Amino acid sequence: MQERYSRQMLFEPIGEEGQRRIMNSAVLIVGMGALGTVLANHMVRAGVGRVRIVDRDFVEMSNLQRQLLYDEEDAKNVYPKVVAAEIKLRKINSSIAIEAIVSDVTGANIEALMEGMDLVLDGTDNFRTRFLLNDACFRSGIPFIYGGAVGSRGMSAVFVPGVTPCLRCFIQSADTAGETCDMIGVIAPVVDIAASYEAVEALKLLAGDNSSRKNSLVTFDLWQNRYYEMKFGEPDRNCPCCQLQLYPALQGHEEDMLTMCGRDSVQFAGNGPLDLSLWQGRLDGALLKVKANPYLLRAEMPGGERLVLFADGRVLVQGTDDFSRARTLYDRYVGT
Amino acid sequence: MQERYSRQMLFEPIGEEGQRRIMNSAVLIVGMGALGTVLANHMVRAGVGRVRIVDRDFVEMSNLQRQLLYDEEDAKNVYPKVVAAEIKLRKINSSIAIEAIVSDVTGANIEALMEGMDLVLDGTDNFRTRFLLNDACFRSGIPFIYGGAVGSRGMSAVFVPGVTPCLRCFIQSADTAGETCDMIGVIAPVVDIAASYEAVEALKLLAGDNSSRKNSLVTFDLWQNRYYEMKFGEPDRNCPCCQLQLYPALQGHEEDMLTMCGRDSVQFAGNGPLDLSLWQGRLDGALLKVKANPYLLRAEMPGGERLVLFADGRVLVQGTDDFSRARTLYDRYVGT
Repeated sequence: MQERYSRQMLFEPIGEEGQRRIMNSAVLIVGMGALGTVLANHMVRAGVGRVRIVDRDFVEMSNLQRQLLYDEEDAKNVYPKVVAAEIKLRKINSSIAIEAIVSDVTGANIEALMEGMDLVLDGTDNFRTRFLLNDACFRSGIPFIYGGAVGSRGMSAVFVPGVTPCLRCFIQSADTAGETCDMIGVIAPVVDIAASYEAVEALKLLAGDNSSRKNSLVTFDLWQNRYYEMKFGEPDRNCPCCQLQLYPALQGHEEDMLTMCGRDSVQFAGNGPLDLSLWQGRLDGALLKVKANPYLLRAEMPGGERLVLFADGRVLVQGTDDFSRARTLYDRYVGT
Repeated sequence: MQERYSRQMLFEPIGEEGQRRIMNSAVLIVGMGALGTVLANHMVRAGVGRVRIVDRDFVEMSNLQRQLLYDEEDAKNVYPKVVAAEIKLRKINSSIAIEAIVSDVTGANIEALMEGMDLVLDGTDNFRTRFLLNDACFRSGIPFIYGGAVGSRGMSAVFVPGVTPCLRCFIQSADTAGETCDMIGVIAPVVDIAASYEAVEALKLLAGDNSSRKNSLVTFDLWQNRYYEMKFGEPDRNCPCCQLQLYPALQGHEEDMLTMCGRDSVQFAGNGPLDLSLWQGRLDGALLKVKANPYLLRAEMPGGERLVLFADGRVLVQGTDDFSRARTLYDRYVGT
């Protein structure tokens, strides 16, 4: 086995056998923001054989305060996060099969994204997507490791189908309105700790040491110096996911429009792939200032808003949280 | 203030005023290994105005499993850690004054290294250096933030002269023989969490929020799912550092030889700077296989050991923990 993993193999609960298992495993990380970059860094350095990363967003300057894998050049290039992350991760460990996918994660594609994966790690920033991952994991019998960070508070827990309750019945309602990183901020050490709790639970499961699994939700506040654990009990008998097996998040219909909470942005799902060079011509023709890279176009609009067109068809209107204003701009420049 | 720090300024206990203070502060990080790279990443992303990093070592493949800022290229180039770290940190945040110093930290240079710094962060791997930092910080009245990680156990605490006990009287004896990362291994999430506890305490102090300071030593074991805090009491009245003000680590004499615990390496302090190009000629002349970069020479010796000559005069004999064997090789190739 390689010298590069020597300190991890010296750790007795992993050892050579655990390292071999880790190297033969595959992990899906959903979201390549603050939590996701820390998770990907851990998985790739630890030697996880296949790491699939998915994110719909691109790198901005305000990400650099906490999003581990990105630097100023990535923000300048307006790279999609997974593309910037993949470049860094390959330099860190060229022996890992890294699959970078620029996409929204929805009920329509989650099962394809999970194909062949042993584990799903939560790098998202909202409970809509978390419940989707939870339902998909429990339907497929794959462990789901949850993490979250906002302000100086972080949390994490590992949910194993058939063994523990699921996120949906353990958390019940996740009323986090007005408590996003874009509303009340976040400090980087909180993100690092929450994601590192996720990462160590991933290593336990991948190395095959089920007896060490943390059987509780850990919550902490670094600024208030608080730490507590909530032990798992029995699942809720009426849980529509892990008990009734209805998996509500997989039954819904996709909406064509959603606001990215607190980010002053409205996203349209679009009607399929966009030919970016064709669209660059159109936007240039409309006398808009356009910045282009192989993955997206970004155009400044006269009112101060910005339009971002992704190759997969999504369109982002930045600079407004007013749905009808966003719809107006979408209709004006992109059409329906 | 810049967009790049927006999420940190939105966090109310920091705000615009705290961010301004952070940007006007200076931090010394001693050690640029596992803990040190996480610390440097946090300080530079948070916008600390001046970050001084010191380390005597160079990047090896076995570092990549947990040492955040390094990649395969750095190991291939045999770069000193602070040089590799500086390149990455500048890309992350070009507005920070980063000072990278390739050096041992000793009683002879610690006060010069601390000149102009507001805070000292522990990225070391041994208690000899930690007690040196502790003594120097308490003599100068500068806070010292301690961190450690081995196996699946981590710990951290912040020591403030005149306010808390010091590391020396709080920890009393630090008997860690046989418990180094090179003996029992270490997993990366432990390192990340220990260093992130250090980082958040640094942010509190730098932002000027003394009331939130953690008044205890935190210890955790991620694999055993344990967490506990030991509250600070009164300092030991006979503490030679914070009470008797003898600062023992600053009184000793440097030794010319020390073993790097468990690493199968013996280091010689040497007799002053080495002219590396001159030495390359000599080692080539001795028919040794030599790898060179601007900071060091590495030569394979016939017995399988390796000799590493640093420009600052230090010489490392790798591949043995036998002092007399190391002395023999040193005398044979370098002379006294």
